[in-house]
Amino acid sequence: MTIYNFSAGPAVLPKDVLLQVQAEMVDWHGSGMSVMEMSHRGKEFMGIAAEAEADLREVMGIPANYKVLFLQGGASSQFAMVPMNLLRGKAGADYLNTGEWSKKAIKEAKKYGAVNVVASSEDRNFSYAPTQDQWKLDPNAAYVHYTPNETIGGVEMFWTPDTGSVPLVADMSSTILSRPMDVSKYGLIYAGAQKNIGPAGLTLVIVREDLLGEPVKGTPTMFDYKTHADNESMYNTPPTFAMYTAGLVFKWLKARGGLAAMEKTNREKAGLLYDYLDATDFYASPVARENRSLMNVPFTLKDAALDEAFLKLAKERGLLQLKGHRSVGGMRASIYNAMPVEGVRALVDMMRDFEKSHG
Amino acid sequence: MTIYNFSAGPAVLPKDVLLQVQAEMVDWHGSGMSVMEMSHRGKEFMGIAAEAEADLREVMGIPANYKVLFLQGGASSQFAMVPMNLLRGKAGADYLNTGEWSKKAIKEAKKYGAVNVVASSEDRNFSYAPTQDQWKLDPNAAYVHYTPNETIGGVEMFWTPDTGSVPLVADMSSTILSRPMDVSKYGLIYAGAQKNIGPAGLTLVIVREDLLGEPVKGTPTMFDYKTHADNESMYNTPPTFAMYTAGLVFKWLKARGGLAAMEKTNREKAGLLYDYLDATDFYASPVARENRSLMNVPFTLKDAALDEAFLKLAKERGLLQLKGHRSVGGMRASIYNAMPVEGVRALVDMMRDFEKSHG
Repeated sequence: MTIYNFSAGPAVLPKDVLLQVQAEMVDWHGSGMSVMEMSHRGKEFMGIAAEAEADLREVMGIPANYKVLFLQGGASSQFAMVPMNLLRGKAGADYLNTGEWSKKAIKEAKKYGAVNVVASSEDRNFSYAPTQDQWKLDPNAAYVHYTPNETIGGVEMFWTPDTGSVPLVADMSSTILSRPMDVSKYGLIYAGAQKNIGPAGLTLVIVREDLLGEPVKGTPTMFDYKTHADNESMYNTPPTFAMYTAGLVFKWLKARGGLAAMEKTNREKAGLLYDYLDATDFYASPVARENRSLMNVPFTLKDAALDEAFLKLAKERGLLQLKGHRSVGGMRASIYNAMPVEGVRALVDMMRDFEKSHG
Repeated sequence: MTIYNFSAGPAVLPKDVLLQVQAEMVDWHGSGMSVMEMSHRGKEFMGIAAEAEADLREVMGIPANYKVLFLQGGASSQFAMVPMNLLRGKAGADYLNTGEWSKKAIKEAKKYGAVNVVASSEDRNFSYAPTQDQWKLDPNAAYVHYTPNETIGGVEMFWTPDTGSVPLVADMSSTILSRPMDVSKYGLIYAGAQKNIGPAGLTLVIVREDLLGEPVKGTPTMFDYKTHADNESMYNTPPTFAMYTAGLVFKWLKARGGLAAMEKTNREKAGLLYDYLDATDFYASPVARENRSLMNVPFTLKDAALDEAFLKLAKERGLLQLKGHRSVGGMRASIYNAMPVEGVRALVDMMRDFEKSHG
């Protein structure tokens, strides 16, 4: 039976990448070493790291005045690193509140400065993203932070805020690499790897160079972006194997036509699900139409008492990890880049069959 | 040709572990998923994590009142996390200075409190470790920090300091799991994984529970040990694949007789090298006899002009990564648990042949 894994992260990886990792596991390119065994300062791994960065720069179109950092600690570490590095003497920063991950970023930022919540969608249970005309921006803010895709709520923003000269900061953990985006509009982008990039344990940061170098007092050396920018992410031992796997994912993206091709496929996959959700009363999408995520599709059964039976049938069909996040309930299908369209079709077929037998 | 990799870290891993990782790469135990693809909150990975912790507790004999944390960020992050968490209202801490890694720990700790250097071996180029009668301990210190094995200098301490009621903290990155040690004598032990534990990107912390919960103001949530202790290292997504691989290494250790058996083999391996270094004038060990590391064996050629030719012959024989650290020069053979005795024999044979042809 073919297994389709709808986990929100760590999540499905391209099968071709896993097969290459497997083939190269014990002896990478005749080196006699696994990538796991290589010194991060040896020529083999230095080459792997340089190629990963070059491929990512190409795929995302990252301008030359941005540093690409391969870090550890997840987006949760960025919740502190962003204010510690980007407040730069200012009293506070602007944050948009669109859900669980926004809230965590806001809570952590309050340790280091004042937080001005420019707008919040908590009034409607985080089911939409406020448009910019609803935002109350502070012209003195050090930066503006938002979460273009809320992994838990499945709320995605398909427009880029205009914050003028105030740097825009985005937690792109669950949307990065899913479609083209204009990096030059951002001061800083960060993302945990375990959705569209690679294995957990790697965190990607893309930061405009002029924002580096003024961390707040008491910032750990490892939490100072400049430490890593000045050392090509090799100040200390980086998560080498995760970087190698991410590099293979970047090559996989290139071979498939890059982010424009990804967006096309992702829109096709998400469309299959949303079209079906719109055509039935048995299931419902809680998210405002204009903010329906391409990556994370939460949905509910009209009768929550059927949830367990639904998950049981899904599992029997090899459709895994569909249970919604504990904070919202219902179901959630995460359909990242590596989820093949066949997986989404299998899910819709199963949903239809379940509706027929329980509707 | 058999390759032997003497890298100081990331370093050689047990071949059997690599082969198992390879075999399970695409489909772990019939789950249809790679471990890389598993949700960290799913039952499969929760089982892997729990087993890894249980095996480590068994192998090291970790008492029940100690938490085992699987973190990220390397020992370099611990250099800040230790003072941020363990100062607990005290003005400062005691540090022993035995080399490059001690110095880094000291430098970072000064950001958060006063550092009293109890003793230093800098007077003799960090070639030995001062005995405790030479230490000037501060009875009011929050803790005493030392580095039982300096990876760069190859200086190891085979005795445990007695610090009375002041918690003892050790950076065991390059000595952990190489021989039995009494965890109950320590307040906190930390270690980057990339020597004796597993792949880079995982950091192990073993901490006595009563030391948790009073971080200094401004400590990032991710740098508060209690965050991770209260959430079984699952506050956010942990480095799942590195934890899985480390778990296989712990099982490998158990199958080979645990740490007592490791020490026996490690003494045999190091003995082969040191015995030869003692028997020749062509090479020399810079380290005091009582502090010769079992894990990292630096040595010099009497004529440094021959270094390149030495490394060339080594490479021809499949003996890799023998160049000494850029800060000290010469050669260094790191011979962690996973280095087979055959690798050390091959190195000594090559050294002898090189001496014959160049001596």
